[in-house]
Amino acid sequence: MDLGMIGLGRMGANMGERLLRGGHRVAGYDPGEAARAAAAARGIETVESLAALVDALPAPRALWLMVPAGPIVDDTIAALRPLLAAGDTVIDGGNSFYRDSQRRAEQLAAAGLGWLDVGTSGGIWGLEEGYSLTVGGDAALAGRLAPLFASLAPAPDRGWGHVGPAGAGHFAKMVHNGIEYGLMQAYAEGFAILQRKEALGFDLAQVAEIWREGSVVRSWLLDLCAGSLRDNPGLEGIAPYVADSGEGRWTVAEAIDLDVAAPVITQALIERLRSRDDAAFADRLLAALRDAFGGHGVRHD
Amino acid sequence: MDLGMIGLGRMGANMGERLLRGGHRVAGYDPGEAARAAAAARGIETVESLAALVDALPAPRALWLMVPAGPIVDDTIAALRPLLAAGDTVIDGGNSFYRDSQRRAEQLAAAGLGWLDVGTSGGIWGLEEGYSLTVGGDAALAGRLAPLFASLAPAPDRGWGHVGPAGAGHFAKMVHNGIEYGLMQAYAEGFAILQRKEALGFDLAQVAEIWREGSVVRSWLLDLCAGSLRDNPGLEGIAPYVADSGEGRWTVAEAIDLDVAAPVITQALIERLRSRDDAAFADRLLAALRDAFGGHGVRHD
Amino acid sequence: MDLGMIGLGRMGANMGERLLRGGHRVAGYDPGEAARAAAAARGIETVESLAALVDALPAPRALWLMVPAGPIVDDTIAALRPLLAAGDTVIDGGNSFYRDSQRRAEQLAAAGLGWLDVGTSGGIWGLEEGYSLTVGGDAALAGRLAPLFASLAPAPDRGWGHVGPAGAGHFAKMVHNGIEYGLMQAYAEGFAILQRKEALGFDLAQVAEIWREGSVVRSWLLDLCAGSLRDNPGLEGIAPYVADSGEGRWTVAEAIDLDVAAPVITQALIERLRSRDDAAFADRLLAALRDAFGGHGVRHD
Amino acid sequence: MDLGMIGLGRMGANMGERLLRGGHRVAGYDPGEAARAAAAARGIETVESLAALVDALPAPRALWLMVPAGPIVDDTIAALRPLLAAGDTVIDGGNSFYRDSQRRAEQLAAAGLGWLDVGTSGGIWGLEEGYSLTVGGDAALAGRLAPLFASLAPAPDRGWGHVGPAGAGHFAKMVHNGIEYGLMQAYAEGFAILQRKEALGFDLAQVAEIWREGSVVRSWLLDLCAGSLRDNPGLEGIAPYVADSGEGRWTVAEAIDLDVAAPVITQALIERLRSRDDAAFADRLLAALRDAFGGHGVRHD
Repeated sequence: MDLGMIGLGRMGANMGERLLRGGHRVAGYDPGEAARAAAAARGIETVESLAALVDALPAPRALWLMVPAGPIVDDTIAALRPLLAAGDTVIDGGNSFYRDSQRRAEQLAAAGLGWLDVGTSGGIWGLEEGYSLTVGGDAALAGRLAPLFASLAPAPDRGWGHVGPAGAGHFAKMVHNGIEYGLMQAYAEGFAILQRKEALGFDLAQVAEIWREGSVVRSWLLDLCAGSLRDNPGLEGIAPYVADSGEGRWTVAEAIDLDVAAPVITQALIERLRSRDDAAFADRLLAALRDAFGGHGVRHD
Repeated sequence: MDLGMIGLGRMGANMGERLLRGGHRVAGYDPGEAARAAAAARGIETVESLAALVDALPAPRALWLMVPAGPIVDDTIAALRPLLAAGDTVIDGGNSFYRDSQRRAEQLAAAGLGWLDVGTSGGIWGLEEGYSLTVGGDAALAGRLAPLFASLAPAPDRGWGHVGPAGAGHFAKMVHNGIEYGLMQAYAEGFAILQRKEALGFDLAQVAEIWREGSVVRSWLLDLCAGSLRDNPGLEGIAPYVADSGEGRWTVAEAIDLDVAAPVITQALIERLRSRDDAAFADRLLAALRDAFGGHGVRHD
Repeated sequence: MDLGMIGLGRMGANMGERLLRGGHRVAGYDPGEAARAAAAARGIETVESLAALVDALPAPRALWLMVPAGPIVDDTIAALRPLLAAGDTVIDGGNSFYRDSQRRAEQLAAAGLGWLDVGTSGGIWGLEEGYSLTVGGDAALAGRLAPLFASLAPAPDRGWGHVGPAGAGHFAKMVHNGIEYGLMQAYAEGFAILQRKEALGFDLAQVAEIWREGSVVRSWLLDLCAGSLRDNPGLEGIAPYVADSGEGRWTVAEAIDLDVAAPVITQALIERLRSRDDAAFADRLLAALRDAFGGHGVRHD
Repeated sequence: MDLGMIGLGRMGANMGERLLRGGHRVAGYDPGEAARAAAAARGIETVESLAALVDALPAPRALWLMVPAGPIVDDTIAALRPLLAAGDTVIDGGNSFYRDSQRRAEQLAAAGLGWLDVGTSGGIWGLEEGYSLTVGGDAALAGRLAPLFASLAPAPDRGWGHVGPAGAGHFAKMVHNGIEYGLMQAYAEGFAILQRKEALGFDLAQVAEIWREGSVVRSWLLDLCAGSLRDNPGLEGIAPYVADSGEGRWTVAEAIDLDVAAPVITQALIERLRSRDDAAFADRLLAALRDAFGGHGVRHD
């Protein structure tokens, strides 16, 4: 099939290359000249404007956005709309909030344009291993574009699917990332316990490696743990500063909104907040209070 | 090699069969006649007493305990000791507390007997897929018995290893199970959020299936989630009652003892406690308090 | 001073009565006839429409809203606006979300009208013990209406204050309620532990009563615990169902938005969600998973 | 009454002084000469050995231990036993683990000696405000020594009581401290949220002061918060390092042992552990993992 890829950063360029390998034709646009050049070097047919991208594709067109979640998605859609014709489809493969996707689907439908939101997992490994894709939007439209998903996925009939109406693809991805936070935190805590048990002298990378086969906790994230711990057993030089991208926050907010108790996903998010809070005002107040009632004294900064 | 297996329940019998497949000779004892008969039917050479088991093995003997953690381990070791000769080895493959294993290793060493504690993961799937084994105890002894571990593991050189002195094998397994609690809870919360989002109509088994390939959250536990949700999409008839076997409690206690913050593993345990507490006294008191200060009223049982 | 009270439910009527006791003149309106009659019986000068209320007050007027948070606040303000004159002030003493209060303040300011948002704590005890009031909005305006706050508060110069610009009063109240969730949950857990320790046979009401004097945990909420446990030691007939009014959710969302780790307030909210979730899908999935890998079986509903 | 106080540190000396004010005779012993001298200056009749202390008291004697929890309690009891006569009583007013108290009660009973364990709350404020006391042990014995408790408590008939058999006094104090952890953390989180909301410019001490009167969250700990925030609004120079004394850990362990879900008390403890863990291995591993799957990069130490 023919696809227009908007956003040729690491994710967009990798996905474009995987589509090329799948026999599709990929035209690509990115506002950055360097990104365009790099993508061109990988075989993607790059153009210098959204208008040129639209022109380069046969109708009905499929435009795949792979840009950071947020206002840039709305801005790009706003710029695309006057260029598109009824029957064209906008696909958002980024980490957008599902309610934004629902709103965008409605706005595009009013103009006769199609919409799919695709929750995309796989990170930098997706190029070789394939991407896990949850597709939201019109089922018939998802069916028509199935060859694209089949090429991006790990196997034509596995690792992707149409999961519901507009927003469902990004909702599923949001929950995926919430789960991911919980899984990562569980492993991190476990290895921290092993690491602190100095009397037993564990080789963390070895333990991780053993668990990779046959154990109940084997997983792809454990594979990565094993690699990280093998490459840098003491995790030297890596600051205990854990960013979060938004999906975890949305999952926590959605769980509360749905009255679902999600203590582990929530604590995993909170631990990330804590990791970035050097000021730790709450802890300072606790220290002050202990001193106030017990005369325990405090440590000084 | 020759091995004596003590305890021919599901785990012991399966492990015995896997060892047989690996070309070892397995003699087995279980106090239960039915268990012995079932094991015999699977090719294990069963005997009717510990003494007969010891007699059936050439020195230096290897005796593998696969019995429930707790006093039965001490009782069995006490019964074995007068029957064993210097150089024989007792292996505990069950879920014993690592400090008990350290104590038992010392007691046996004083009698010239060897000890290995083997954290064994794999559950009922281990027979076919192999067991993940973390071995604690004397390194030379673990090396001498390596052929047994190589046969039990998923592959001769993968999925098992000698991880440290006596106790280390069970310590690692304890942490493994703590991680397992956290992983399971993370998935359970995620699917609960999807399930409650009725407006999007997710097919949970489908989403699980999609994530099994290419996603960041792919894992063996997710494979099981997919199976459980496919077999029983509404989880009908399954009570929300989650048992715990002790390893999670020990992990939480050990984390606190080591001053390691393990919020996710801990919350996963707490959620299990909560699942079994229908009386929910704390919640009743909260309801009473809300009424006391706000006149909000309460629901009645 | 003269005040118009809009909303003569329990909170509004009680506050009106306390203002009367303070020597103020209180005109009141409520759409419900019964509420008006009850308030009139307590000495509040009731009228049958917002227009009549506005007419009954000398300019510049002070109108105090004591209605449920949400659209009814906007509706009431919309109905009031054409009736008011520049220099009049709307006061929201309910549990509105602070961002709504900021928006309302701006809208009213554009019409030359004043705004104060008053976080009001004290519940049904406020009539006798006074209300704790955090006032947000223009400082000079708060100063002009100080006699009202002084009468509502426990003492003229204590228990109330102007804490910041519009929204600050409700923001502080939101955090107050978040703290309240955490405090209540801490007590509830503690008494649940005592209750479950059957071997020591605690009389919970007695322990609560002892702690009320001299202990580090003494508080007004503990006073209420003591009362609830004395009146109904087993909390018989009170269902473990804990409602939440919104302020706790906002606190959790705000903490995340500000990157502040608030694990205890958050867990207290989550516990309330859990208390109301009989279906407990997550727990069912955990039970199913344990069975899937360990063959542990499940309990049936 | 006559009392022998063993341990004349801050708590012991203050309690001795309060008993003197209550008209009792207090003989005191401490191994430290400076502590003895300071106590003597406050009117306590000090002696230089346990033997001298026992000699100084009329039978049946009451010996009150106010020493750090742990082996020193056993050592002191071992040293006392040969000096005491049947009918004498040992009282432990420190923060001992309740199971130790149960064991000690049994050991002393076997020698005809009485035992009371007294959970003592009030900290450095107890001298003036009185101590909250939960007494465990024989009811008749507690009744005989009631005049001592009546003088130590905030009022003769309030703030103290016999709550159960040996161990019950310390069990209640353990839970008291668990609750205390939760309460402190709830306040600390709330004030941290207010502090971080810079756009509203809260004066934290003012808000605390307002809430002290009439609000649902008013408490003695809030009084202390108000004082700490007034004295040092930015909590300058106070490190975010929060010690814990053991009682919180025991509460968490006991809750788990009793199958009681105590998420808030537990998280409050975990937050203290986290406050002291600068290495934060778990967070480092999370950062490494995010980089491994997403190529997000890491911050460097």
